[in-house]
Amino acid sequence: MTTDAPLSPTPRTTATRSRHRMHGGPGGRAALLQLLTEAPVAHLGVVVGDHPVVLPVAFAVDPEGPDEGGTLYVHASAAAGWLGAAAGATVCVTVTEVDGLVLARSGFHHSMNYRCAVVIGRARAVTEGRERAHALDLTVDHVVPGRAATLRAPTRRELAATALLAVPLAEASLKTRAGGPVDEPEDVAAGGWAGTVPLHRMVGEVEAATDAVAPVPDDVVAHVERLRARAGERAG
Amino acid sequence: MTTDAPLSPTPRTTATRSRHRMHGGPGGRAALLQLLTEAPVAHLGVVVGDHPVVLPVAFAVDPEGPDEGGTLYVHASAAAGWLGAAAGATVCVTVTEVDGLVLARSGFHHSMNYRCAVVIGRARAVTEGRERAHALDLTVDHVVPGRAATLRAPTRRELAATALLAVPLAEASLKTRAGGPVDEPEDVAAGGWAGTVPLHRMVGEVEAATDAVAPVPDDVVAHVERLRARAGERAG
Repeated sequence: MTTDAPLSPTPRTTATRSRHRMHGGPGGRAALLQLLTEAPVAHLGVVVGDHPVVLPVAFAVDPEGPDEGGTLYVHASAAAGWLGAAAGATVCVTVTEVDGLVLARSGFHHSMNYRCAVVIGRARAVTEGRERAHALDLTVDHVVPGRAATLRAPTRRELAATALLAVPLAEASLKTRAGGPVDEPEDVAAGGWAGTVPLHRMVGEVEAATDAVAPVPDDVVAHVERLRARAGERAG
Repeated sequence: MTTDAPLSPTPRTTATRSRHRMHGGPGGRAALLQLLTEAPVAHLGVVVGDHPVVLPVAFAVDPEGPDEGGTLYVHASAAAGWLGAAAGATVCVTVTEVDGLVLARSGFHHSMNYRCAVVIGRARAVTEGRERAHALDLTVDHVVPGRAATLRAPTRRELAATALLAVPLAEASLKTRAGGPVDEPEDVAAGGWAGTVPLHRMVGEVEAATDAVAPVPDDVVAHVERLRARAGERAG
């Protein structure tokens, strides 16, 4: 599956309202992968017993991964309490970035600008050695592209303490909102103010660990510049 | 229940690992409420049929609300497909703010700095008129404090199109990570770099709607200043 493949929303991942905010077609898949690349964390939903548990997780995507539609890898501690309930079960992985507060003239039309990807699929425990190593590298590179290649290999103990789940990207949807408020004509005529407060992720100064003697590596410098450029674009 | 009441984590909301990152006691409840006040969106998990659905939602908290431990209100469209599955069922509301990328000398010790609140409880549909009006005001004031009082009242049609769920704050946990990477002694001795990339939400320039003639209201100006001050504190 490439970035040119269309999204494949199903009833489970298709919004029952605001369908104009859903993205299909080739551009939809590229936008989905861009969001999944940019967002630092995902929220994983798992049914544990009779109720859902939603937790933030580190993740990465491999559009060419072995699962239908490509693979979304979720990273977890092997000691995580919800892990047993997730492997082999249908899970939901949701990735949301908030882009702004939309302040309308009525409470009803208040909204947010955002990008939200919802992926629903059967979670597969990643057990094969090469796929585990690949998924771990992708998870580190999701945080700072290129960084995995600069680090030592994980030890057996570290590998044993790490769990990886693979979720197919086949059943995925992207929903976004952008732009200003949409008000009732009578509220506009009444003359009140309305507008948008843009929000974006900003990067502070890199803080070296107190015991770090080496200079900040090139991959980290490059990524911070990339994050700042992205924030600049969002700030307008 | 006041902000001085301790958090009441149960096995469902207690981490099975990294317990040192869990917050209990009076300060824990204050920190929980602060996160729930600051974060723009929550992720709501609902079991729909045999699988979980996780979606970003607008929300607000009333520490003095009628539910045990206070009330977390979730705002939704009455047309939302998952709503029927949520009312009366146990749901999970998770609120996460990412504060930084933690870049260790090994892939294994890579992490994030974050604050994460998890609330699990039985969702109650809010049907009584005064509580609905109160919850709607809180939801608008969650976006911009004080704004609800400056807007007209919702119409009958708008009220009919809006659904509100109440979730007790009784069963809530807060987990946070802050600070630099924790590396293996042999990796520190090897001399590689490690550090933290701080992240925070930043506010762009307020964009007035194209049809807005009134000046930006005081409550919006004050809130943008508040958000900028908070971002400045996080940037250090």
